[in-house]
Amino acid sequence: MKDLKSILTQVGDIFATEPFLGQPEGLYQPIAYTMGLGGKRLRPTLLLAASHLFGGDMSRLRNAAIAIELFHNFTLLHDDLMDQSPLRRGQPTVYRKWNPNVAILSGDAMCALAWRYMLRYDQNRKDQALECFNETTIGVYEGQQLDMEFEQRNDVIIAEYMTMIRQKTAVLLAGALKIGALSTTAADEEIARLYDFGIHLGLAFQLQDDLLDTYGDTAVLGKQTAQDIADNKKNYLYLRALSEADAAQRDQLLALFATKPQGSEAAEKIERVLAIYNTLGLSAKTNEAIAAEFDEAARCLDAIGVPQPAKLPLMQLTEALFGRKK
Amino acid sequence: MKDLKSILTQVGDIFATEPFLGQPEGLYQPIAYTMGLGGKRLRPTLLLAASHLFGGDMSRLRNAAIAIELFHNFTLLHDDLMDQSPLRRGQPTVYRKWNPNVAILSGDAMCALAWRYMLRYDQNRKDQALECFNETTIGVYEGQQLDMEFEQRNDVIIAEYMTMIRQKTAVLLAGALKIGALSTTAADEEIARLYDFGIHLGLAFQLQDDLLDTYGDTAVLGKQTAQDIADNKKNYLYLRALSEADAAQRDQLLALFATKPQGSEAAEKIERVLAIYNTLGLSAKTNEAIAAEFDEAARCLDAIGVPQPAKLPLMQLTEALFGRKK
Repeated sequence: MKDLKSILTQVGDIFATEPFLGQPEGLYQPIAYTMGLGGKRLRPTLLLAASHLFGGDMSRLRNAAIAIELFHNFTLLHDDLMDQSPLRRGQPTVYRKWNPNVAILSGDAMCALAWRYMLRYDQNRKDQALECFNETTIGVYEGQQLDMEFEQRNDVIIAEYMTMIRQKTAVLLAGALKIGALSTTAADEEIARLYDFGIHLGLAFQLQDDLLDTYGDTAVLGKQTAQDIADNKKNYLYLRALSEADAAQRDQLLALFATKPQGSEAAEKIERVLAIYNTLGLSAKTNEAIAAEFDEAARCLDAIGVPQPAKLPLMQLTEALFGRKK
Repeated sequence: MKDLKSILTQVGDIFATEPFLGQPEGLYQPIAYTMGLGGKRLRPTLLLAASHLFGGDMSRLRNAAIAIELFHNFTLLHDDLMDQSPLRRGQPTVYRKWNPNVAILSGDAMCALAWRYMLRYDQNRKDQALECFNETTIGVYEGQQLDMEFEQRNDVIIAEYMTMIRQKTAVLLAGALKIGALSTTAADEEIARLYDFGIHLGLAFQLQDDLLDTYGDTAVLGKQTAQDIADNKKNYLYLRALSEADAAQRDQLLALFATKPQGSEAAEKIERVLAIYNTLGLSAKTNEAIAAEFDEAARCLDAIGVPQPAKLPLMQLTEALFGRKK
């Protein structure tokens, strides 16, 4: 039986040996650049761990692992253009390093490249795996659309936010797990449990992102904290604050999130928002919501009927994510 | 045996009954809008005609026909944004009617929707059909990349241009034919001949586009002619002119294609370029190049060993395209 570390090593090896280059160079360089920026490789790790969970042969899932990571990075590439984000993992985003048209077209090609790897999935239940992959991509787009629509709305409630992050973040984690599991002999009900594990893990992961953005350590994160407040991004903390604020706090929050000051005034805005968040005890409350999702995820994993040692990598991963600082 | 008209009716029925809607509406409305703009539906027609050619059951290719047309229209959607084209089939393009982010994201979703239909391909050689579909999409992106790179270069030669339009236009026509044929019992060599037919048809089609842009009838085309000259787009006529011009004409062309005047000066620029084209006899020469590709296409179709009546729709289609005025 393997542990998380050995799976991470395997994932690292996969991406260390794939150049993602081709002709014309202008199309593939931004793809290789994006893949070279690194990242946690969380989705391929989940995919391999899911195969391991049900006794599958991880080495045969190399292509699917690459496919899911290519797709994920493609969505970041297009998202960065749509959000006009200048940096990704501390480096210039593709639309800034090249230009918006390069970002659009290389992104499209990157998605097709993901499909090229995915079509090489030569395991059990290939049809189901391909369908899962495609429906996952559609889920992500629907989530991104909701995210963009929420930016224009002032009446988003927490339930809607949870639906949005489920689509935008959680279905891809759950989909990676399912694609890994479909290559094994696991029963459909067991795969469904693993999928739910992925959904709750994904929700926890995104809520944690929101929390770290507001209360994380700048030095550890490698980026400015409270960027969501500066950008008027309605994350979990903001929506939770609105739902628990009194009339005066609510008016203040709405007014602060209607402005986008620069320089020292930006810092002042962040301070004023944080003061309200602190009064409402949002750090603790968000941590509770995160813990609830992690608990739910653990329960799903618990219910899967395989020997305990096979669960070790996913349990270690859950623990590592629960304690993450960036 | 069917004729082209009955296949066109079948294609028309397919698209008349597919709404392409979903939730969130904001994501799917631009897709339904784009598909509702109509068009020749050339690629689905080729796909069904290819199945018919080899005795296949066209009614079982409904999903593949939708997939190929969705993909084609998705590329137009993203291309219009990259080219900043305000109109498509006389209507505002998606990025103008909505905004660039909507065009990016709805385009991505449209490509995934194409995959959803393509994955329902339940015919012979499904794996090959899916691979053909994906490699076709990659070919199209590579062609679009070359097209964008050519805009920045002044030394593009005709051979490079032919490679570019092969990727950008011809492989999708050839791919549609191949996907249709893969659903039948046709031998691989026969399918390869049909693929080549599609390539030459596609090259002829694109050269004709270039010719019509310069020498077409505004009233018939529904758009201004000589738009390529106004936009400094290096189409076949321009590259052919450069390759046959004397030093003085060459300098003039290069100088004219380095400016983008507005209003009456734009008309004057077009007139001056046209004068050079006319002197060089480019209308006749381009027509010859188009005829050569059509001949080549006809030879490929001829070489396919099926009863003549089965070829009727593709022969009629070739003739109709050869004589097209828009």
